Amino acid sequence: MSTSSNKDREEGLAFQPKFDASGLVTCVATDAASGEVLMVAHMNAEALRRTIESGDAWYFSRSRNALWRKGETSGHTQRVVEMRMDCDQDAVWIKVEQTGAACHTGRRSCFYRAVGKGGTLTFVDAGK
Amino acid sequence: MSTSSNKDREEGLAFQPKFDASGLVTCVATDAASGEVLMVAHMNAEALRRTIESGDAWYFSRSRNALWRKGETSGHTQRVVEMRMDCDQDAVWIKVEQTGAACHTGRRSCFYRAVGKGGTLTFVDAGK
Repeated sequence: MSTSSNKDREEGLAFQPKFDASGLVTCVATDAASGEVLMVAHMNAEALRRTIESGDAWYFSRSRNALWRKGETSGHTQRVVEMRMDCDQDAVWIKVEQTGAACHTGRRSCFYRAVGKGGTLTFVDAGK
Repeated sequence: MSTSSNKDREEGLAFQPKFDASGLVTCVATDAASGEVLMVAHMNAEALRRTIESGDAWYFSRSRNALWRKGETSGHTQRVVEMRMDCDQDAVWIKVEQTGAACHTGRRSCFYRAVGKGGTLTFVDAGK
């Protein structure tokens, strides 16, 4: 990719997601109220399109190789309050109103363990 | 990978990052004070080790294929206040005290554009 197209992608107002080799961008979902990071997942072009169009978070599951609307089976949906694109357009940040748990383990956030000195983990949210 | 090792990775307290095919995990850095997402980048095993050991954020640059300490040339360092691991241990969340700008464009955060209906971008932080 040329320098000029990188420049355009970074300083322009054209929506031109930079998908990886698998056709995905990274998505970070944070709680619109608390600011807590709820989860990190991936979106393909169709998940991006549906998220923007519907206001509900859609993702692409790499393990299931399938598009999914967050909460379609669990009811734990994510309503998008704001969506941001990063400088090189390979990552998206959505601020969401989370119904129930974002994590498939039943916890509010996927980031329920802190990493301490020496790489020891401790639970910061053991609640389910 | 077996179900039992996934279970252990999710519910255990052993630090066992799940690196992708390139040997990387995703890292989300948020501002410890404001909660704003500053950037999304990657860490390899060595970047993780150095970050945990030093308390300064280290990353692995895919484009430069090199380990780097955030701010080593710009002075825009990140002091890690807290580090979290996600459920399947393929993503890390660090809350940081950011000196200066997290973004290489000179902006505080890489997420300086909002995505509107129809996929139009608007600047939410044009300041540099």
